[in-house]
Amino acid sequence: MSVVENRSDLPVLPAGEPGPPERGDAARNRALLLDAARRLVDERGADSVTTDDIAAAAGVGKGTLFRRFGSRAGLMIVLLDEDEKIQQQAILFGPPPLGPGAPPLQRLLAYGRERLKFVDTHRALLSDVGRDPQMRYNAPMMLHHSHIRLLLDAAGTTGDLDTQATALLSLLDADYVHHQLTDLGRTLQELGDAWETVARKLCGS
Amino acid sequence: MSVVENRSDLPVLPAGEPGPPERGDAARNRALLLDAARRLVDERGADSVTTDDIAAAAGVGKGTLFRRFGSRAGLMIVLLDEDEKIQQQAILFGPPPLGPGAPPLQRLLAYGRERLKFVDTHRALLSDVGRDPQMRYNAPMMLHHSHIRLLLDAAGTTGDLDTQATALLSLLDADYVHHQLTDLGRTLQELGDAWETVARKLCGS
Repeated sequence: MSVVENRSDLPVLPAGEPGPPERGDAARNRALLLDAARRLVDERGADSVTTDDIAAAAGVGKGTLFRRFGSRAGLMIVLLDEDEKIQQQAILFGPPPLGPGAPPLQRLLAYGRERLKFVDTHRALLSDVGRDPQMRYNAPMMLHHSHIRLLLDAAGTTGDLDTQATALLSLLDADYVHHQLTDLGRTLQELGDAWETVARKLCGS
Repeated sequence: MSVVENRSDLPVLPAGEPGPPERGDAARNRALLLDAARRLVDERGADSVTTDDIAAAAGVGKGTLFRRFGSRAGLMIVLLDEDEKIQQQAILFGPPPLGPGAPPLQRLLAYGRERLKFVDTHRALLSDVGRDPQMRYNAPMMLHHSHIRLLLDAAGTTGDLDTQATALLSLLDADYVHHQLTDLGRTLQELGDAWETVARKLCGS
């Protein structure tokens, strides 16, 4: 059994080999632990949540957490992975303006604000991932780049689209967003407005 | 004596406490080692230069290198620091279009191309520095942010200038530039052109 289980067709974070099928208690405990972890992270932020907290909130033993996820980091990666997939679904198939159906620039602006909220919530783990230069340019992270690039293109943006997508993506970097919010006292609203300014200029709107 | 000596009035990288004055042989050996290291790094790239190479090229013993700089990393930090100061002088006081005297947009475009060359040459050490989130937002790194922001402002750029400076600065990130040049086969000319596109759009020109 691998430390991190990943059975989706759309891997978002590299999550090891899929393990054998889980049944009964194992699958239920896994779901209980993930639900508890998500709830606690939402309430307190990832940095303040321990494996003891998660096991207690899930009503299972701490040994079960380690059997299911290998480590606290293993559980957090699965959590991030699942949340990335939920956001991806919303981006690709959800209602406009984030999903299809709105004009490209409107989708781009909605994406920026949604992603800012996401990186704020998932800052600690995204920051770990972003610090590894190999991880920064891997396939999962490039999905966000591709989405921005596609919308820039659809909005009729001139010039080198990859570079402009990189510039926009840099403003959604977990460390940058954290620095702006925590050290400089800016708000997600302000960062979203600033993202909109840059996006509009690049699109020429 | 601190590992890293730094006696300029314009510290560019945090380089520890200044050591006591050097005299005679010590100062000459220091200069010989820095000159040799700079020459070898220019010829081969930082990753291919060893302390043995540097000591041999400087005509001094390897023990002298370690007495002067503490470690290979210590020498490389001093080298980066000195080169950052040389570039800073050119930006602040050198001839246009990089230095004062050219219109702000022209200075901004010249800065982008010069800085791309610099980060390409100094990639290995800048990459180390950039991986530490504390270092990414420290005073030295923010000098580049301030310079870009100042030129955006002087060029009459609308909207949140800090955010737009961050977006431009992200395209000068050492890991990003290295990835573009090495993995994607792009050229400094292409990256400079792409930087110009983004800079012009943000300035509204």
